[in-house]
Amino acid sequence: MFVHHVFFWLKNAGSEEDKAKLLEGLKGMTSIDVIKTSHIGVPANTNREVIERGYDLSWLLIFDNPDDQEIYQVHPEHKAFVEKCSSLWSKVVVYDAIDI
Amino acid sequence: MFVHHVFFWLKNAGSEEDKAKLLEGLKGMTSIDVIKTSHIGVPANTNREVIERGYDLSWLLIFDNPDDQEIYQVHPEHKAFVEKCSSLWSKVVVYDAIDI
Repeated sequence: MFVHHVFFWLKNAGSEEDKAKLLEGLKGMTSIDVIKTSHIGVPANTNREVIERGYDLSWLLIFDNPDDQEIYQVHPEHKAFVEKCSSLWSKVVVYDAIDI
Repeated sequence: MFVHHVFFWLKNAGSEEDKAKLLEGLKGMTSIDVIKTSHIGVPANTNREVIERGYDLSWLLIFDNPDDQEIYQVHPEHKAFVEKCSSLWSKVVVYDAIDI
């Protein structure tokens, strides 16, 4: 199992228009075949000190293995997403975790 | 769907003994009934600039809804884990994401 979790901070913080564009871009990738599970999220209302709540959208992908994640990285639909949407965000944080 | 993703940095960085203790503590919680999916991870070998690789263990939980996550937070097994293991880590970062 390979967990790929991405958190996006919009350049135009609070812009619903840009958030909608990014959301549309993410939704367009959910059909990529190597993705086993996907989730597009926003920060929950939980609010303890250790919780990072500053991001605008989260993108969780679960793959069967690291190779599938590499296939996703170079997939034409992923490349098209980056080209179309990368101007929308100012910061991205990624966590890639594998089985221990 | 409620995604709860926790990243742990050990106080004794690099201690395999402390990592094993924390791992054991996490494994002990996987049977909590409101948890729909769980994954215990370590950083993958991916190494782009945006990837955070400094943590020692990750703990991904998926719940059906925010209420189930609240039940988990106050579950006796979760409280016992915090009591037993919180001295092991120096830093915790949590992301709680819900459906948009």
